[in-house]
Amino acid sequence: MTAPTTIPPRSGTAFRLAEGQVLTVIDPQGEQVSDLVAFNAHDLGEAISSGRSLDYASKLYLTAGDPIYSNRSNVMLRIVEDTVGRHDFLLTPCSKETFKIIYNDENPHHGCFGNLEIALAPFGIGPDSIPVAFNCFMNVVIAPATGAFTVEAPLSRAGDFVKFRAEMDLIIGLTACSALQSNNYAFKPIDYRVDRAG
Amino acid sequence: MTAPTTIPPRSGTAFRLAEGQVLTVIDPQGEQVSDLVAFNAHDLGEAISSGRSLDYASKLYLTAGDPIYSNRSNVMLRIVEDTVGRHDFLLTPCSKETFKIIYNDENPHHGCFGNLEIALAPFGIGPDSIPVAFNCFMNVVIAPATGAFTVEAPLSRAGDFVKFRAEMDLIIGLTACSALQSNNYAFKPIDYRVDRAG
Repeated sequence: MTAPTTIPPRSGTAFRLAEGQVLTVIDPQGEQVSDLVAFNAHDLGEAISSGRSLDYASKLYLTAGDPIYSNRSNVMLRIVEDTVGRHDFLLTPCSKETFKIIYNDENPHHGCFGNLEIALAPFGIGPDSIPVAFNCFMNVVIAPATGAFTVEAPLSRAGDFVKFRAEMDLIIGLTACSALQSNNYAFKPIDYRVDRAG
Repeated sequence: MTAPTTIPPRSGTAFRLAEGQVLTVIDPQGEQVSDLVAFNAHDLGEAISSGRSLDYASKLYLTAGDPIYSNRSNVMLRIVEDTVGRHDFLLTPCSKETFKIIYNDENPHHGCFGNLEIALAPFGIGPDSIPVAFNCFMNVVIAPATGAFTVEAPLSRAGDFVKFRAEMDLIIGLTACSALQSNNYAFKPIDYRVDRAG
């Protein structure tokens, strides 16, 4: 088992994940969110799709055993272990515009979107291609009658994790989230580890 | 006011909608769904984004007054009138894979996705670019604790409509939906009309 790598607060990274490898996303301090996106390493037009994944699962909250499908309906990742069970797959990575529109911030941080844009550029992936992310540990609570939702503190505690098996060769983008609501108003790091399948 | 155009059952179309024009999507018989996608006519990398639109609205069910944002956080469309108030912006257009995975159909119809692919091709828009659609009249009912959802019969009755104002020059893709659950197990047409802003 390899040692974890730390993503510093309000930053992001990107890396290759080969078919069969297992990515563990760890919340080292608790109540932090990590936005995950994935692209087919051999054909960058294929990316994770919230719409297909949720549709085929017939549920909003994906957890252990659930596949994450691409826009071409292929399984890209499979969640193999999950100590939290509450993640979001509805919302886009926070961005300059998020901070302007939701937080009325006049000098906004570039957010997870900006961090993903920078991290994915060396792989030839442009910002228009960044899809709705699988937002690990993000806790979106929905009022069923109106559909109104709030972003609440994550249910994750220090050391909680979610583990994904790559079902094809992937480029992964991963962040330590920059949005106040998502993290219960404290910016923290995210750890991750890549292992061969057990 | 122009006469409506009919989209026959299980088919789709695409057309230009200029900034300031108003698109009315009409359910002529009731309980039918119409998947709508939109692209910036001058830069096809910009398309509607469920993730951004829902995030900025802080609700799942968009209706009159709500903007539909692009992946670049620009307003592409604004809902200006809505006689139903229940539409879906979570799920991808139904496709061959939808019918295989959800309905166990061995010889599946190509679905709204296939119809959009064919209709959008002459505009230079490929299938990988088709985003989560704004699914007019689609009635997705969510159990809040588990996030499990079901696709129920639309709340639309004959003549109900939703009206969108284009906030930029757009290419629109629009369908009469092909999925059984979405339409209460009856395939019906969709009507639409394009008018100058009133």
